[in-house]
Amino acid sequence: MKINNILFVSPLNQEIQNLIENYELEKKFRYLTEDELRDEDLEWADAFVSFKTRSSYDYSKVKWVHSLGAGVDSFIFKKDWNEDVILTRTICSFGQRISEYCLSYLLKDLQFHDQFLYLKSTKNWEPLTPNMLNEVKVMIYGTGEIGQKIAQVLSFFGVEVYGVSRSGKQKEFFKEVCTVDAHFSLLNQMNYLINTLPLTEETEYLFNKDIYKHVSNIGFVNVGRGESIRESDLLQALEFGQVRFAVLDVFGEEPLPQGNVLWEHPNVVITPHISAVTTSSEAVECFVGTLENLEKDNPLHNRVDVKKGF
Amino acid sequence: MKINNILFVSPLNQEIQNLIENYELEKKFRYLTEDELRDEDLEWADAFVSFKTRSSYDYSKVKWVHSLGAGVDSFIFKKDWNEDVILTRTICSFGQRISEYCLSYLLKDLQFHDQFLYLKSTKNWEPLTPNMLNEVKVMIYGTGEIGQKIAQVLSFFGVEVYGVSRSGKQKEFFKEVCTVDAHFSLLNQMNYLINTLPLTEETEYLFNKDIYKHVSNIGFVNVGRGESIRESDLLQALEFGQVRFAVLDVFGEEPLPQGNVLWEHPNVVITPHISAVTTSSEAVECFVGTLENLEKDNPLHNRVDVKKGF
Repeated sequence: MKINNILFVSPLNQEIQNLIENYELEKKFRYLTEDELRDEDLEWADAFVSFKTRSSYDYSKVKWVHSLGAGVDSFIFKKDWNEDVILTRTICSFGQRISEYCLSYLLKDLQFHDQFLYLKSTKNWEPLTPNMLNEVKVMIYGTGEIGQKIAQVLSFFGVEVYGVSRSGKQKEFFKEVCTVDAHFSLLNQMNYLINTLPLTEETEYLFNKDIYKHVSNIGFVNVGRGESIRESDLLQALEFGQVRFAVLDVFGEEPLPQGNVLWEHPNVVITPHISAVTTSSEAVECFVGTLENLEKDNPLHNRVDVKKGF
Repeated sequence: MKINNILFVSPLNQEIQNLIENYELEKKFRYLTEDELRDEDLEWADAFVSFKTRSSYDYSKVKWVHSLGAGVDSFIFKKDWNEDVILTRTICSFGQRISEYCLSYLLKDLQFHDQFLYLKSTKNWEPLTPNMLNEVKVMIYGTGEIGQKIAQVLSFFGVEVYGVSRSGKQKEFFKEVCTVDAHFSLLNQMNYLINTLPLTEETEYLFNKDIYKHVSNIGFVNVGRGESIRESDLLQALEFGQVRFAVLDVFGEEPLPQGNVLWEHPNVVITPHISAVTTSSEAVECFVGTLENLEKDNPLHNRVDVKKGF
């Protein structure tokens, strides 16, 4: 496939343009914000590149759409997609980043950071023995690039790692991988659940009381998408002690609105969608690599299966 | 060497006795507290086993002294030792435990736990990009069992790990190991220092302004011994910003006295000597293994070099 005219639509255009120029690609580029974008730009473009889009665009003249992030829900979730248009996404150090994020919160819990902070405030010397990672079981939802990297990191420490995926296909670093339907019976053994799933019709509101009723006293970490959580059910699970604490990096509405009760919940950690930041240079590197593979008709490991939604 | 009479001196005797009995050893045992101990017990005993001792005892009739902890300073630091008496120490999961302890505090810092907690309290959505472990350099003081395990764990994440040891001998998982004298020029590149050293004449007050003047903005973790720190110098280093924060698990006086200013220092984490708890069953397992090696004249990998002090 030959790509000549490339349209970038991003608030970070200046930075991206500087990085792109280092590669000396013999292409024509337009760098626009979403507000500046006109129909004629879409007619001109062979490729459309963006972090995410607010609107649905007419890609009928575009051959290739590339997401500068890992998630593609802003392109396809509850939107029609013409399957002639190739959709690719960014795969870079997300897995490593998200692993360190998740591990930091598991260790915070196992090493009693909060308890020792409190004991210090009361000048109390009270030896509590931290728990070790090889004593816990973790269920990871999603066994793709990101979920598998988390599994690798946790199993390095002897964590017993279970996975949930669409296919239930066994993968390295997981003691067992199940489908959603088959995983409920394992839930009562788990100490932590980690969600890494993309937002699709199947994962929307997946985490609702049907899951929470099977767990007790767990830590729940969401680094997937906010829409996979039914917030009212999570709040109830926190109240019932099914979920002991939640660490949330993603939300249905971002920034999380001031009025949302999660802000004030003592057992909820809120981070502003930072567990897997794409640096511009990593995003551009992945874009350039994908462009090269596309033009050479190489296999695209980062092509999105639009039917599956990831 | 033949050992018949074994004297345990510990506040945890009941628990230890129960565990020892599982091994059905054909030995004679006495289990005493330090207050109950009489001279005739020391005359009776071939082996003296204890976590730590308050006093100096006359071991002239004893063949073997075994420490139920990793540290042996309570036995030999600033005390005379008859080199005919074999001294051994407990080696078990300390390395793994201390690694998870240290990693938890490095990740807390790199992942901005405190900052996100503060932003949550003000309902502020402010994306800060966490730093990754592969971006930092760590100097570990002590390259023995414990230091090397920490180095292995950190290097798994791509941390650039440097070591300081008595010999300066190169070891796996360290980019470079230096002697104390040779390490000063590397200090200004470091993000974190971790002390795992035993207390010896050489390590007493090792961490004083001569080290702190070479660093800036570092995190300092002490899982070795409290006496290796000159506390007034550490407080000054915190004030000068040479040390950004300190995580202290060990102190010259334990429990840390109520009047100690460290309790109220905002940039100091205090934990009550829990980074490497020996469980009784691990301690007994190590004791039994050492006894067996001793009686079969096998090499003792946990024998203390009394001259070196560890």
